[in-house]
Amino acid sequence: MDYDILDSSLAEKGHLRIEWAASRMPVLAAIRERFETELPLAGVRIGACMHVTTETANLMTTLIAGGAEVALCASNPLSTQDDVAAALVDIGIPTYAVRGEDAETFYAHINAVLDTQPHLVFDDGADMTMVLHKERVEQEVVGGMEETTTGVIRLKAMEADDVLRYPIVAVNDSDTKHLFDNRHGTGQSSLDGILRASNILFAGKRVVVAGFGDCGWGLATRAQGLGADVIVTEIDPIRGVAAAMEGHRVMSGAEAA
Amino acid sequence: MDYDILDSSLAEKGHLRIEWAASRMPVLAAIRERFETELPLAGVRIGACMHVTTETANLMTTLIAGGAEVALCASNPLSTQDDVAAALVDIGIPTYAVRGEDAETFYAHINAVLDTQPHLVFDDGADMTMVLHKERVEQEVVGGMEETTTGVIRLKAMEADDVLRYPIVAVNDSDTKHLFDNRHGTGQSSLDGILRASNILFAGKRVVVAGFGDCGWGLATRAQGLGADVIVTEIDPIRGVAAAMEGHRVMSGAEAA
Amino acid sequence: MDYDILDSSLAEKGHLRIEWAASRMPVLAAIRERFETELPLAGVRIGACMHVTTETANLMTTLIAGGAEVALCASNPLSTQDDVAAALVDIGIPTYAVRGEDAETFYAHINAVLDTQPHLVFDDGADMTMVLHKERVEQEVVGGMEETTTGVIRLKAMEADDVLRYPIVAVNDSDTKHLFDNRHGTGQSSLDGILRASNILFAGKRVVVAGFGDCGWGLATRAQGLGADVIVTEIDPIRGVAAAMEGHRVMSGAEAA
Amino acid sequence: MDYDILDSSLAEKGHLRIEWAASRMPVLAAIRERFETELPLAGVRIGACMHVTTETANLMTTLIAGGAEVALCASNPLSTQDDVAAALVDIGIPTYAVRGEDAETFYAHINAVLDTQPHLVFDDGADMTMVLHKERVEQEVVGGMEETTTGVIRLKAMEADDVLRYPIVAVNDSDTKHLFDNRHGTGQSSLDGILRASNILFAGKRVVVAGFGDCGWGLATRAQGLGADVIVTEIDPIRGVAAAMEGHRVMSGAEAA
Repeated sequence: MDYDILDSSLAEKGHLRIEWAASRMPVLAAIRERFETELPLAGVRIGACMHVTTETANLMTTLIAGGAEVALCASNPLSTQDDVAAALVDIGIPTYAVRGEDAETFYAHINAVLDTQPHLVFDDGADMTMVLHKERVEQEVVGGMEETTTGVIRLKAMEADDVLRYPIVAVNDSDTKHLFDNRHGTGQSSLDGILRASNILFAGKRVVVAGFGDCGWGLATRAQGLGADVIVTEIDPIRGVAAAMEGHRVMSGAEAA
Repeated sequence: MDYDILDSSLAEKGHLRIEWAASRMPVLAAIRERFETELPLAGVRIGACMHVTTETANLMTTLIAGGAEVALCASNPLSTQDDVAAALVDIGIPTYAVRGEDAETFYAHINAVLDTQPHLVFDDGADMTMVLHKERVEQEVVGGMEETTTGVIRLKAMEADDVLRYPIVAVNDSDTKHLFDNRHGTGQSSLDGILRASNILFAGKRVVVAGFGDCGWGLATRAQGLGADVIVTEIDPIRGVAAAMEGHRVMSGAEAA
Repeated sequence: MDYDILDSSLAEKGHLRIEWAASRMPVLAAIRERFETELPLAGVRIGACMHVTTETANLMTTLIAGGAEVALCASNPLSTQDDVAAALVDIGIPTYAVRGEDAETFYAHINAVLDTQPHLVFDDGADMTMVLHKERVEQEVVGGMEETTTGVIRLKAMEADDVLRYPIVAVNDSDTKHLFDNRHGTGQSSLDGILRASNILFAGKRVVVAGFGDCGWGLATRAQGLGADVIVTEIDPIRGVAAAMEGHRVMSGAEAA
Repeated sequence: MDYDILDSSLAEKGHLRIEWAASRMPVLAAIRERFETELPLAGVRIGACMHVTTETANLMTTLIAGGAEVALCASNPLSTQDDVAAALVDIGIPTYAVRGEDAETFYAHINAVLDTQPHLVFDDGADMTMVLHKERVEQEVVGGMEETTTGVIRLKAMEADDVLRYPIVAVNDSDTKHLFDNRHGTGQSSLDGILRASNILFAGKRVVVAGFGDCGWGLATRAQGLGADVIVTEIDPIRGVAAAMEGHRVMSGAEAA
């Protein structure tokens, strides 16, 4: 099996962390159980370009439980967890991801996954999709999915120009993405990242949130919940009023700065 | 029986409202039950100068259940509920309270209650206590209690001057007063009063709270909970920081205005 | 001028309250100013079946400022403010609304408004629209608008059956309705109604909210903001998870009861 | 100069982190400025047994700015930041702290600090104070201070038994400790610790907080602010009601388990 990871000896630690994440993913566990008896993906090859993390690892094993063959590369070189990559190779998934890899390696990894001739493409940022539309334009693909808002915006523009080669599901448009992933996931994890980097106490701090979309809404709510004084900047008047009605101050970026 | 109220025919409505309030006062109900068997106040005369409301009415009947004789006048002419006053007279409590009564009547009512020669004085604002210290200085009283912060401040000054004639319990200093009555009771009912008077939507409004004592804390928390942008003014730096750490903006009264 | 109200002498009080409400409606004031110079509704007759309240009164005078002729009846006999109705008649608007009017009067009032031959129909609950589709099927109408979710559901069903006689704007579908009116308006005013009727303290109370649509979301948020322990009942799993992620307990109606 | 740390070469990293922390400690900076001109601690030797962290490092340099000589050991072997210890040695403070040190080393370090013959003892958990009361009972000390609730409880018991050898300031009893350190500091950092260890999303999770003192209050508030469903266990009825009025469910530990 072909693969490119940092260090195979990290597999054990990766397995433990994947297992821990699995214990917090009950819905995926229920799907896996159904997949094991129904095998809806039997014979389907999937190429994925996603964050190589414990959560993605559990998605990969669930797809395999449903009968699929998968290959995985990283959608963001900075989020790759090298121990998880090692564990995925250990269970037989061709994985191409090294934390901090440069742009050349990044594209080499995308091409390595596409070399497995996937029927379906799972994308998170539309990079793999772009390779299929700009370089590997002859390669046959049945369908794809895209996770991010930015990715979907690119794809909608391509659809409008009638250059989309195969149907792509905009995962990003689902209610669960907006209500849970964007709002709560990004809300908490943004704060978590600032906390880990700075060790500051949020209570009493002034926090400026640029934009009151779902991510900004979640972040503002969580910062408020930690005792911060939240200022929101917005250019959309409806969203601005929404922020004000949640108790935040709303001003232009210039005023906030 | 002597009394002075607006209209005896309001008694029926008063009884209904007192009964409703009783259903929301389980702790007082438990005390009443104990009082009925233990009669700890048998033979004790109590003179009360308190808000003549449904809650006070239930306190009065509980004291009677404990064996006491009570007489009641209003501590605030604007809070008197005339139907409750009528109901209290109907169950045999000498009550002196007419909503909106003038200062002369107010003091006449205090004197009428003191004419019943109470052993104990229940006061809410220290007005009855002042009459006992300035005019009726010969009248014997066993002890008293005072409910308000302002009343307790007056009494502490008198104690420091050694002019307090009998021991007085500072109800105001109890944990239940601070944690529940001041914070939650005043917090909600201040907003409730503004709501009833103005019909405004709190979400998105700027609310200035003067002072971050227990009452101000409660009010600020509730206004925040209704979606307002809360500014707190404080002269005590510790309290000011406390407000900031709850997520409020803190400034001087001049800045806030 | 024809009209039917309770008491013309209430007009003065109504004017004061309409003026107060106007001071809290800056967006409408801005529209009114533009209408006064642009007169976009010159020559347009409007028949409205709406809550006869201070807010609607300001909408009516704004429409007149834009050049329209308006006639108004009540969409809900229990929300009519008789002093506002009197003030509207006083400024020359044919108004048909008496608080607590019976069903017969209610429909007589709708017909009185329709007798003014409106080009446009403003509806809040689809009652006037129904009269135009069941009884006055020959009357010409250029277009309508509908404010409520229930009204829009009825109208969508009619559209699907191809029986809608003229185009109707679903005001209810606008972002401002969902984000502000439903969530914040209904959220606060539901609590306000319970407060006025019961005088209970919300802090520490258990509150059950049936359904986590925009109205339920707002109500749950506000009850939580007043210190209540909130339980949400939901049949839609996505909405149920949304409620859980806001910190509410989610259960079936049977469990909550 | 005598000292015991892990690795002197970590000093540079320690300096950077101490400097960062200093930028978030404006009150201490103001004190330091005053100390530099007033030198209130000139000639005073201080022995400190505290968490060897960036914050303590800034306290130490501030004391030195005030004219003091200080020596420092760790109050908790697990909180020691080895790079900070190295930086402290680098600026000339006798520091005795190695992350994870065993009990024997822990007490050797306390004795090393006491060998500097401090006039004042700064303690965080009363371990240094205990050594001075059980083993080094002849050593002269002018006074001490104690930071923790548990430490103060031990000291109050000793005071009641009349065995306290010198006056000790209970820092723990100050308003700033209760209102800010316990409530906000511990509230946020407890959650932060759980986040870093588990990577779970708090929104929608059930969180049980044992005890509603200042720390528990802060933790419950922050967990609620992150979208958790909070249960509080309490044995003190007043505190239990306080928790209920903040919107938490209150139950016994057995029920919560």
